[in-house]
Amino acid sequence: MATGWGSLLQDEQQLEELARQAVDRALAEGVLLRTSQEPSSSDVSFILMHRIPSVNGSQFSFPLLMAILVVSYAPFTLFPSLVPSALLEQAYAVQMDFNLLVDAVSQNAAFLEQTLSSTIKRDNFTAHLFDIHKQVLKEGIAQTVFLGLNRSDYMFQRNADGSAALKQIEINTISASFGGLASRTPAVHRHVLNVLGKTKEAAKILSNNPSKGLAMGIAKAWELYGSANARVLLIAQEKERNIFDQRAIENELLARNIHVIRRKFEDVSEKGSLDQDRRLFMDDQEVAVVYFRDGYMPSHYSLQNWGARLLLERSCAVKCPDIATQLAGTKKVQQELSRSGMLEVLLPGQPEAVARLRATFAGLYSLDMGEEGDQAITEAIAAPSCFVLKPQREGGGSVKPSDDYSPDHRLTATHEKL
Amino acid sequence: MATGWGSLLQDEQQLEELARQAVDRALAEGVLLRTSQEPSSSDVSFILMHRIPSVNGSQFSFPLLMAILVVSYAPFTLFPSLVPSALLEQAYAVQMDFNLLVDAVSQNAAFLEQTLSSTIKRDNFTAHLFDIHKQVLKEGIAQTVFLGLNRSDYMFQRNADGSAALKQIEINTISASFGGLASRTPAVHRHVLNVLGKTKEAAKILSNNPSKGLAMGIAKAWELYGSANARVLLIAQEKERNIFDQRAIENELLARNIHVIRRKFEDVSEKGSLDQDRRLFMDDQEVAVVYFRDGYMPSHYSLQNWGARLLLERSCAVKCPDIATQLAGTKKVQQELSRSGMLEVLLPGQPEAVARLRATFAGLYSLDMGEEGDQAITEAIAAPSCFVLKPQREGGGSVKPSDDYSPDHRLTATHEKL
Repeated sequence: MATGWGSLLQDEQQLEELARQAVDRALAEGVLLRTSQEPSSSDVSFILMHRIPSVNGSQFSFPLLMAILVVSYAPFTLFPSLVPSALLEQAYAVQMDFNLLVDAVSQNAAFLEQTLSSTIKRDNFTAHLFDIHKQVLKEGIAQTVFLGLNRSDYMFQRNADGSAALKQIEINTISASFGGLASRTPAVHRHVLNVLGKTKEAAKILSNNPSKGLAMGIAKAWELYGSANARVLLIAQEKERNIFDQRAIENELLARNIHVIRRKFEDVSEKGSLDQDRRLFMDDQEVAVVYFRDGYMPSHYSLQNWGARLLLERSCAVKCPDIATQLAGTKKVQQELSRSGMLEVLLPGQPEAVARLRATFAGLYSLDMGEEGDQAITEAIAAPSCFVLKPQREGGGSVKPSDDYSPDHRLTATHEKL
Repeated sequence: MATGWGSLLQDEQQLEELARQAVDRALAEGVLLRTSQEPSSSDVSFILMHRIPSVNGSQFSFPLLMAILVVSYAPFTLFPSLVPSALLEQAYAVQMDFNLLVDAVSQNAAFLEQTLSSTIKRDNFTAHLFDIHKQVLKEGIAQTVFLGLNRSDYMFQRNADGSAALKQIEINTISASFGGLASRTPAVHRHVLNVLGKTKEAAKILSNNPSKGLAMGIAKAWELYGSANARVLLIAQEKERNIFDQRAIENELLARNIHVIRRKFEDVSEKGSLDQDRRLFMDDQEVAVVYFRDGYMPSHYSLQNWGARLLLERSCAVKCPDIATQLAGTKKVQQELSRSGMLEVLLPGQPEAVARLRATFAGLYSLDMGEEGDQAITEAIAAPSCFVLKPQREGGGSVKPSDDYSPDHRLTATHEKL
């Protein structure tokens, strides 16, 4: 909605007042990040045991929480972005196709092996994931329920005739984030427009509650696992600035009386175990669902952590995602899917789904060493405005605000006009 | 609900995990305070004008807010407090009586003058307020609509037979705070109980939305003032840690399309004015309602600020509260009301209201210099467990987390068993 509001952007004083209001609203709505200074510091710096005298002269203590921990707001745009309704409908319609495609890929061991064979040779991270995948396949997969929480990222392509087209940039099959915070941003954007007196426009901003949707997926997996006292195990990072995004999902689960325990890979190494039926236990509590909010980047794994990941994958707990689904989200797979005829092989007898999927493909170009990669780079240098160079992790997953792009990330070009 | 949960209070590890969950939930729900390090720093440390290339080669900028401002949570008890339903009902039932009593006092110039005569001689702050009150009376009151947003604070008295009785500690008639944050604490306490698996107890926690109630009062006053484009003027402090409490009310008003402008007394001095009909204007915008979240303590007033307060009181805008209502909330008045026969004088022909009010009186003892005060102090020293010494400001108002009790605050004893 920012386009066409040029005069508004010129009035710096008004913008500042708007920003002040928007920031306070974002904070009040829980659009929060831990500050980078202390992402891992204990949440509760001290609990004051408040003592008051009781009738009989003894003292009664109760915990009163006093604040030290500080947080700030997650970055957000001051104005909402205009999305043509046809493209939104298209994105809704194609999501199930994408989910089924990811599922089909994750179950197609031959396709994964063939597609990732070159990647595995040069990339230790993908090689490690693939090793675990092979081990689990060899032993036999214990889990019977599979859960994917996938996030498709799109940009709009401006066509020559001025119309807009929906183009997928990537699909995240592990630790897809910001569903929690995104649930609270419509209120912030409505506020900004209401302050401007644009009440009609404010009323047009759709509500969005992805944290509830994500929680419902986890709740369904938990239910299908079928053990009333089992927990959801959230694999969390030690330093997690984006914890409020995760808490939003935890809160939705707790409201359904499903308890989440947050643990690190290191905790799994120390206190996780499988019984003879490969049921997973953490601290003697049975685990129905393992929800990964860690483990999508090379830096997340020590040797010990790889051991923990293997333990989790061998269990019959529902992994979100299982390791094959994580591999299905790699850029190399995405690139392979865009090859002519490939969708038809993976989704036989579903020409309509194939057509919907292909309409959103943006064109992926290899930057691998070799002839194909060289060609793409030459084209990009010749016409830079037609390419977005996008930092890329083979582990998939979404970019967190605290992410640094380390040198081992390769680049993939996404052909996209802006 | 803390009583009887002794074993829970012994398990430090569980308490810490509970506290961690409660703090994150409080932050996500907006139970926030600005940190004391930077209560007045600009909310928005920088607005990044994000530039992206457009199709025709020019650049398009849009504001993206990046975080610097940090906040923390307002102190809260980990567990909810048990309130006997009979006492809650009693508090509801007597509130209208208190509101009518405050209103009656505020309109009774003779009672105010007589009651406050000794206070005025020794207390510059009350004397200043009273001067303005007299000036406005002399000129003739321009406002025709009066709005009080009063908060009664209670404690429970344990009777000899073990039953509990509701005792009012004070009534705040200006800048009564924490209605906004209190709207969000039931969710936090439900969360804590749900984590403990106490779902039945969690379901018993009543919802509470005082910010909506307060906003509805202001909205009604705005409506009665009867000017569609007029604003609500919130008189705010420069350093306000408790801004999220206020924003909650502002948000409710904005949702009703009533715009709030936040200004300091200094701004009123510089840019406030009255027209010939004593209509109030701020920055050329008409003001329907003045909502004070400042001006309840001596330290809030420079000579310039007293001038601003007089300007506001002289206007026909609805003040919340007008200066007579602020005076009606002083401890000296509260003490006077507890004298035998006084309620009957102020509320003639309303014996039931008088009975309801008197049942909540806790007994107020003067600590004034003189015989009466000496007697009260002697009693308090002799039986200290029966008295709570309560810091006291003649300006009324509630204690803010950032308040310091300066030496000029006198002490009033509130007779209260715990």
